[in-house]
Amino acid sequence: MEPLLWVDGTLDVVDQSLLPHHHHILRIGRVDELCSAIASLRLRGAPALGLGGAWGVALACLEAGDPAAADYGDRVRGLAQRLSQARPTAVNLSWGVGQVLAELKPLPAAQWADKAREIARRMHEADRAAGRVMGALGADFIRPGGRYLTHCNAGPLATSGVGTALAVFLEARRRGLDFEVLVDETRPLLQGARLTTLELMEAGIPVRLITDSMAPFAMARLGVDGVFVGADRIAANGDTANKVGSYGLALAARHHGVPFHVVAPLSTVDVRCPSGVHIPIEERAAEELCGFGSEKWAPEGVAAWNPAFDVVPADWIQDIVTEQGLLRPPFVISIAAALAGAPGPEPGTQEYQR
Amino acid sequence: MEPLLWVDGTLDVVDQSLLPHHHHILRIGRVDELCSAIASLRLRGAPALGLGGAWGVALACLEAGDPAAADYGDRVRGLAQRLSQARPTAVNLSWGVGQVLAELKPLPAAQWADKAREIARRMHEADRAAGRVMGALGADFIRPGGRYLTHCNAGPLATSGVGTALAVFLEARRRGLDFEVLVDETRPLLQGARLTTLELMEAGIPVRLITDSMAPFAMARLGVDGVFVGADRIAANGDTANKVGSYGLALAARHHGVPFHVVAPLSTVDVRCPSGVHIPIEERAAEELCGFGSEKWAPEGVAAWNPAFDVVPADWIQDIVTEQGLLRPPFVISIAAALAGAPGPEPGTQEYQR
Repeated sequence: MEPLLWVDGTLDVVDQSLLPHHHHILRIGRVDELCSAIASLRLRGAPALGLGGAWGVALACLEAGDPAAADYGDRVRGLAQRLSQARPTAVNLSWGVGQVLAELKPLPAAQWADKAREIARRMHEADRAAGRVMGALGADFIRPGGRYLTHCNAGPLATSGVGTALAVFLEARRRGLDFEVLVDETRPLLQGARLTTLELMEAGIPVRLITDSMAPFAMARLGVDGVFVGADRIAANGDTANKVGSYGLALAARHHGVPFHVVAPLSTVDVRCPSGVHIPIEERAAEELCGFGSEKWAPEGVAAWNPAFDVVPADWIQDIVTEQGLLRPPFVISIAAALAGAPGPEPGTQEYQR
Repeated sequence: MEPLLWVDGTLDVVDQSLLPHHHHILRIGRVDELCSAIASLRLRGAPALGLGGAWGVALACLEAGDPAAADYGDRVRGLAQRLSQARPTAVNLSWGVGQVLAELKPLPAAQWADKAREIARRMHEADRAAGRVMGALGADFIRPGGRYLTHCNAGPLATSGVGTALAVFLEARRRGLDFEVLVDETRPLLQGARLTTLELMEAGIPVRLITDSMAPFAMARLGVDGVFVGADRIAANGDTANKVGSYGLALAARHHGVPFHVVAPLSTVDVRCPSGVHIPIEERAAEELCGFGSEKWAPEGVAAWNPAFDVVPADWIQDIVTEQGLLRPPFVISIAAALAGAPGPEPGTQEYQR
């Protein structure tokens, strides 16, 4: 399943808020529509947001009008800036925007629109290739008859169509291994219950849905052989922001001696954040906790605390599976080494724009 | 709010599955209706189930027909047996049934119906008094400006109308203290979001609703001064079965140095269970994890693991607040001492029927 696709000057985006019961495509022609699709999590998943950022600059180049106009560059950058701020935590969004802008900068404005599409397409393909590499590396951890656990959705829908954490399960299945995956439902927006179950069931992988609160007890009673999650932003020291609930899950994994694997492309690393405390955490509306869809279950007017992410300390992470290989502690060294070997403008350089 | 009330030969039960939006009273005249109200969590909460068990025997004495019939005693006991098995984990249900049966046993059958009501009424009043004692003991832990956390519902609706864990907050508020309570929504049946928020808001206590998965991060980021929960069954060594999610919550509390308090009447103790592994854990239908009310969000046919409870190891519990005082580790000693001082037939004796 492909979460976003460029079709003749528009971006076709699967409305993930309506899955699994309705498959609806949003045809997006303007940057503000894309911002709103991202803010409402219709388009979501860190790598997919990176691609949304890249393709969004391509949209911006068309929307900004005549490239011969004196303010064309400023208009493109203004739209891109707005897009990169549509959600604060996943660094991939601003990374995707920044990658394209950095390559456009030296070129004449007249070439920007075509070139932006070319770069976005290249990034799309690179993300797909990265997913395959991460899947292959991570699948080596899967043993026949094992039981694994995942949180939120780090599958095809969160990426270019291959996945990060779920790429591991999909590849292990392709290799013919039998194993089971426990899926955290992932309140409040239920990406686990709605999307991850769907993707794993379609691949023929045995799945059991659990509430987020059952994961620690599953480790104690059922036994779990490994946890695989994606990431929204990884600090230079390996501290990892991911969907809220990851922190408690990693703590429980550590207590039970269960390996906790983060699977994410290097575009998720933000070297400007030395550690997790520097990662901005998006807080969302109380309303998300008061019900779901048409069902409202909390008393009218109740207050809430609704951080969309939390931060897993690097110490609790066994390894980070990237497209440049398996990173092991101390992550401050292994991450820096991987970034030094990575292609393209590096995060943290002048061209890298937030 | 009184969750159940005896009115002229019927039991009026608040349908807690419809709260907070609909206040509907079930008028229950037969034991099988009571069993089904309990199985569907319309009547819930360990102490309230104890009272349901006691009043249920009173219903059984009427339903069993003519006390002069030779099989009257067997019929009452048969109905009582069915009732005590309506849910497996909360020991209070079978305790309530057993208490009344034990007192009826030596009496002539003609007196059973009146006597059962008298005993149930006495237990109802004792539960109310116990709630006040536990509230007063626990409130000494609350400090002005503090932030506390609770899971599921251990309030008036879970008891005779006073509460266990929530009795602590209600009493602290009555003493004029200002503090905040974070309320775990408590998936899958959302007792925290639906019932606990309601009870605390009505008492004028500042509340913030969170998802269960946010509790560990709340301890790390916001700071939490104490966790208060009820209990469904306490083993002789202090291991405590409570609503699923309690295990991970207690683990997180331990990691963050947050005191974890269990608040429960001694009727929750089951000395036949030497430790937590002996406590039966109810597993419920997958359907509860696939949606809520009219909203269905998981793919059709998904499998699930749905334990209704988990077990907190005694080591992670700072104290157990009971109507006989504050029990401290080693619980195997303090629990035995408290039970020796408690009135009425002791759990574990011959009269105590499952």
